[in-house]
Amino acid sequence: MAIITLTTDFGEKDHSAGAIKGAIYSELDEINIVDISHSISPFNISEAAYVIQNAYSSFPKGTIHVIGIDSELSPENKHVAVYLNEHYFICANNGIMSMICSEISPDKIVEINIHDRVETSFPVLDIFVKVACHIARGGTLEVIGKVINTIKPIKNLNPFVNDENTQIIGSVIYIDNYGNVITNIKRKFFEATQKGRPFEVSARSHKFKTIFNKYSDILNYDDDEDSKRNVEGKGMVVFNSSGYLEIAVYKSNNSTVGSASTLMGLNTMDTVTVNFLKP
Amino acid sequence: MAIITLTTDFGEKDHSAGAIKGAIYSELDEINIVDISHSISPFNISEAAYVIQNAYSSFPKGTIHVIGIDSELSPENKHVAVYLNEHYFICANNGIMSMICSEISPDKIVEINIHDRVETSFPVLDIFVKVACHIARGGTLEVIGKVINTIKPIKNLNPFVNDENTQIIGSVIYIDNYGNVITNIKRKFFEATQKGRPFEVSARSHKFKTIFNKYSDILNYDDDEDSKRNVEGKGMVVFNSSGYLEIAVYKSNNSTVGSASTLMGLNTMDTVTVNFLKP
Amino acid sequence: MAIITLTTDFGEKDHSAGAIKGAIYSELDEINIVDISHSISPFNISEAAYVIQNAYSSFPKGTIHVIGIDSELSPENKHVAVYLNEHYFICANNGIMSMICSEISPDKIVEINIHDRVETSFPVLDIFVKVACHIARGGTLEVIGKVINTIKPIKNLNPFVNDENTQIIGSVIYIDNYGNVITNIKRKFFEATQKGRPFEVSARSHKFKTIFNKYSDILNYDDDEDSKRNVEGKGMVVFNSSGYLEIAVYKSNNSTVGSASTLMGLNTMDTVTVNFLKP
Repeated sequence: MAIITLTTDFGEKDHSAGAIKGAIYSELDEINIVDISHSISPFNISEAAYVIQNAYSSFPKGTIHVIGIDSELSPENKHVAVYLNEHYFICANNGIMSMICSEISPDKIVEINIHDRVETSFPVLDIFVKVACHIARGGTLEVIGKVINTIKPIKNLNPFVNDENTQIIGSVIYIDNYGNVITNIKRKFFEATQKGRPFEVSARSHKFKTIFNKYSDILNYDDDEDSKRNVEGKGMVVFNSSGYLEIAVYKSNNSTVGSASTLMGLNTMDTVTVNFLKP
Repeated sequence: MAIITLTTDFGEKDHSAGAIKGAIYSELDEINIVDISHSISPFNISEAAYVIQNAYSSFPKGTIHVIGIDSELSPENKHVAVYLNEHYFICANNGIMSMICSEISPDKIVEINIHDRVETSFPVLDIFVKVACHIARGGTLEVIGKVINTIKPIKNLNPFVNDENTQIIGSVIYIDNYGNVITNIKRKFFEATQKGRPFEVSARSHKFKTIFNKYSDILNYDDDEDSKRNVEGKGMVVFNSSGYLEIAVYKSNNSTVGSASTLMGLNTMDTVTVNFLKP
Repeated sequence: MAIITLTTDFGEKDHSAGAIKGAIYSELDEINIVDISHSISPFNISEAAYVIQNAYSSFPKGTIHVIGIDSELSPENKHVAVYLNEHYFICANNGIMSMICSEISPDKIVEINIHDRVETSFPVLDIFVKVACHIARGGTLEVIGKVINTIKPIKNLNPFVNDENTQIIGSVIYIDNYGNVITNIKRKFFEATQKGRPFEVSARSHKFKTIFNKYSDILNYDDDEDSKRNVEGKGMVVFNSSGYLEIAVYKSNNSTVGSASTLMGLNTMDTVTVNFLKP
């Protein structure tokens, strides 16, 4: 059975996500609709890009991903359908796809042009659902749009390396549900730049010389219970399960013990640097 | 496959919504269960009415809508099943259905009377699910209730027009996920009263002389980038995609740039007026 | 069709819940995936235990429940699969199962040992999904783990009775979506201790001598409208639909009229006592 996923900033209360699902079932009886998230911050393209980037590839090949963020049609905000890594994506051409496309080249991009036949102020409902159902029925992209070659980029997507090759200047792209602070520095990029040198990760006045592979690696199981409790609430750096350098706090909770974001005052767009030292 | 939708104030954390879905699957193996919203504000009948009103008609004919808001059975709060516009609705008779019924007459209303057979303090689980599954299996409404002729109204559902026909006095019925302020003034009603006259929409000290058809219509694409940025955060009036007069802010976000609700101090129940001027 | 439910602290925004669902569909085409909750407070084992305890038994026999809370593998936090009351549970062995197991003995517990074959920092995705799909395909628990006899308990799960048998000392285990305060005192335990004696429930300075069976039982339908409105916002005690002693406020709402939790200042871990009087 075909799968259509939904990633939007519609929130958990409004009728919009429900209406979308109803419209899909009105076109297709046999379909799996899967909510990825409806809680992307309003109009936050970077957040949406991070979420869809890290969710999509778990789905079976051929899955159709509808992304409803900042999707009102305008001369500067066209609609696209993208075929990449054997998955389909339907969204506005506003940068959302640039994170995924920076890693894997799209096989096909079309600018959707069925708008002359559909007048709408709710394009996810009236355009994206139509396109998604067309694809789910086995339709081709050429029928619903004209082929284009590039998509719009997001600025500051990738970290910089200085000329001396001694520093990575990255930035925070996402704060997760635990208040962990996720940067745009991926493990592969880090290791290619590091070439085995010792390093120091800096964010505001906080400095870290170790990157863990999982959160509980900060615990020492020979310690007594008190020492273990002391670790809770302390900062640490990990490569998270999606491969991004992340500043975290062991067993954090925004509303009780605090989190990396609340305790260190780190937010999206903030700078995180890595300095490499002479070996 | 039959569809049962859920609209409740159970929230995203509690076990209640999960228990409902489990109970449905325990009765029916082949069923699509669709969450419309579990984040209606507790006991907020108007919010629930607005959400279900604008979600239900996207679903296929024959869909069964379970609405779990303020549904504890009492002498003043009976349970009903309503058949309207080829959709089924199961809810308490507390005004939730009056918004939908004010536009389209129900074909049948029954007051549910299977309570003598089921003792419960969780009626959505024990009564509404039973009724929904009965309907999904093709059962008739008469088997689970006795036919009645009217449902309970919500007060102040519709806007007023003054005797001189120069003013619509409406009110705010819903604040959406973007903080947009939605009134009870529908486009059809507005235009029938306006009869082409110029007008001014007022909410607190804010006044608007234009109603847009979509948010980005406030942009002027000949402007430079700075002028465009200035539009973000400015108030505007649109007929939203559900046809309601809405006071909005272009690309608003309650927690960052602010929204129509936070920037103008507008909340549900507040008055919004339209004054018609001599042409 | 087999059912897999999900109960996690992943939140509504992050990609994690979406990735899990994608991974399940990648293994199984025919499966019902049901979200119970992704809004458990981070690392809150008691909350997760309460939610899964009260949701699971509504599902059909054979349902597979994946619980993703504090599931990082460590020497002190092993993974288990439990077969109990004809349901399967997959989670970390960190106390989550002890509430369910204190009422019904598990038929089988295995400590999952497929980790040597799977390197992961996202065990719900890489381990729990694999185990769930294995069970959904009809696989046995012995294939994915070694049988153990006991699971790890949560402290302070059950209320105490004093030596004179005149007092139950319980505690708050959950605050629900309406701000109602749910204790660990179950009706059966209460009645077995009460033996018909009059009683007084105390929480902070609040005292109650009646336990209602449903919220609206606090209303007197002979009262006029004003008296009825006075009841809204008043405290009361009920046995909730899951059988727990609960301190509630009629038609409460945390963000408007207040709730039992906000109005009485009651939180999880707080003490609630019942004193029995001489008859």
